[in-house]
Amino acid sequence: MSWLQQAIKSPCETAILAATTRQQQLTKPPGSLGQLEALAIQLAGLQASEQPKIEQIAISIFVADHGIADKQVSAFPQAVTAAMIKNFAHGGAAISVLAQQLNAKLRVSNLGTVSQLDAIAGVEDNRLAAGTANFAEASAMTEEQLQQALAIGKNHIDDATDKANADLFIGGEMGIANTTSATALACALLQKPAAELTGPGTGINRATQQHKQQVIEAALAMHQLNADQPLDCLRVVGGFEIAALTGAFIRGAQMGLPLLVDGFIASIAALTALKFQPDIAPWLILGHQSAEPGHRAVVAAMDKTPVLQLQMRLGEASGAACAVPLLQLACALHNNMATFDSANISTATI
Amino acid sequence: MSWLQQAIKSPCETAILAATTRQQQLTKPPGSLGQLEALAIQLAGLQASEQPKIEQIAISIFVADHGIADKQVSAFPQAVTAAMIKNFAHGGAAISVLAQQLNAKLRVSNLGTVSQLDAIAGVEDNRLAAGTANFAEASAMTEEQLQQALAIGKNHIDDATDKANADLFIGGEMGIANTTSATALACALLQKPAAELTGPGTGINRATQQHKQQVIEAALAMHQLNADQPLDCLRVVGGFEIAALTGAFIRGAQMGLPLLVDGFIASIAALTALKFQPDIAPWLILGHQSAEPGHRAVVAAMDKTPVLQLQMRLGEASGAACAVPLLQLACALHNNMATFDSANISTATI
Repeated sequence: MSWLQQAIKSPCETAILAATTRQQQLTKPPGSLGQLEALAIQLAGLQASEQPKIEQIAISIFVADHGIADKQVSAFPQAVTAAMIKNFAHGGAAISVLAQQLNAKLRVSNLGTVSQLDAIAGVEDNRLAAGTANFAEASAMTEEQLQQALAIGKNHIDDATDKANADLFIGGEMGIANTTSATALACALLQKPAAELTGPGTGINRATQQHKQQVIEAALAMHQLNADQPLDCLRVVGGFEIAALTGAFIRGAQMGLPLLVDGFIASIAALTALKFQPDIAPWLILGHQSAEPGHRAVVAAMDKTPVLQLQMRLGEASGAACAVPLLQLACALHNNMATFDSANISTATI
Repeated sequence: MSWLQQAIKSPCETAILAATTRQQQLTKPPGSLGQLEALAIQLAGLQASEQPKIEQIAISIFVADHGIADKQVSAFPQAVTAAMIKNFAHGGAAISVLAQQLNAKLRVSNLGTVSQLDAIAGVEDNRLAAGTANFAEASAMTEEQLQQALAIGKNHIDDATDKANADLFIGGEMGIANTTSATALACALLQKPAAELTGPGTGINRATQQHKQQVIEAALAMHQLNADQPLDCLRVVGGFEIAALTGAFIRGAQMGLPLLVDGFIASIAALTALKFQPDIAPWLILGHQSAEPGHRAVVAAMDKTPVLQLQMRLGEASGAACAVPLLQLACALHNNMATFDSANISTATI
């Protein structure tokens, strides 16, 4: 049996009940902390503790190139993928700065840049190929590559739980042209037309976006994907980094590690995981509503509300990382506020 | 000449230009950090520094009772106002927990509880009266009380700039029935009917909300307020704590201190300040979109986008406090990310 078939952990109902009761006793009108109350209760269930905490944070960035970039669907050339890997490692990228601010452990995994990079301190060389195949012409990945990419994501979760004792996992991605792969995958999973989900990505103009949409439409027409086989959809039009994220999300829910999901691309990996195994749902917290227009449909399909809406559209786990302080404040309020009893405020006054 | 007539400081255009240029050079697609880019640039202008920072945070909570509570417009009795003052001082209230997490300086000022409280360490006794007068029958404040309350807010800003060297000021409030006062004030300033702005506050039922709306309608019909005289509107239907917040916001913009505004009630104090002196606008950052339905109209009138939308409706500066980490992350990204030059990524690749 593959690890993919292992059971998903159930959130702790006892802790959810205890945390819900606790929220009702805190010195505030019921419900007045809004989404922060729901987050604290959800985290209590996931961490099986009435008093959850977010102290050790594991962030993994998965990077890969995409064959579909040959179709000129991005504003940036593929050389930027490799350049950004160095930037992650050297501390200059957005997620590097955010990880430092959050005191989070940041890992960077290269699953398949076009160019073979020299060894870089802080970058794990997990190259499966010089990018995926161009899914306009063939399947992006072989079955073996798919399984390898999923397993790399799994390994990051196993390290986060076994070695890093993480309270929270954040998965991010970078890869030129990967909104094209992610959009095609979302179209296949949600059975929606490319016209509805295709967006500007990192900032292409209207003509290029129209072309990107047509590339996706043609590929979907060619491959005739089955939404009931999400991992096969992932293999055919996805990317190595999207597969690694999918593997991480599946494994996180198996291991009982809360998963804070980033924007458009990470959410589509989460959707893939969710279509593969619906029990994953409670383990997913959406960090940020992306400015990429197709993200709304993906979020709606997961029936969740992102913590933040800041019009970000960068990827790299940056949106999720920005949500971490809110989760921490939700826990602090939940754990440290006085109760009506302890503050000697009569509950009869409500 | 009253201090109220002193000139408002102008944001530094040189710093805004330098910060805008800097954002364009950071290693990300232009605009991809969304609202965080705008916040960093705004703060640069307010702090007259290309590299803004949020380290020293001054939070002031102004507390007072309201005569309009006699009309049974709240879910809670007035005794809760005094009880919550103790809770603020003892560290058990939401804002106490948040201030501790943010390492912020929290001040609590009692401008007028119904009951005279014993001295409490950490609470400043600034009582002007045993609550305001019931504005269903008379003006809430005398002119002298209004000036005193405005001056208390001013003094908090002067202390924050002179003594605490604050990078940011947050003003909060607490006072049973103060959504009724604030709603009446917003109706007067925005010339909107009570039916459009009245909400459930801390959680009254539909019948009580209907009654609250009628109380506001009757009072507005009686007082015939002039929207062009915002401080007089404040005097007639406002509250001591709302006036203190208004004074703080006016003084903050005079002294050049960035002002992070909380939800419904604090926003209406900010709106009052803005109607009094429109040049205050650039100094105001809205922290949180409140769940109180009338807040949308108030926010729209200020033409600003709150940092957070978490369905909170507590007051106490809690929504603004939750936005602080986002401002800090915006500054960290702005100051610490690599530029295309420093990361050796050719800008020709864009």
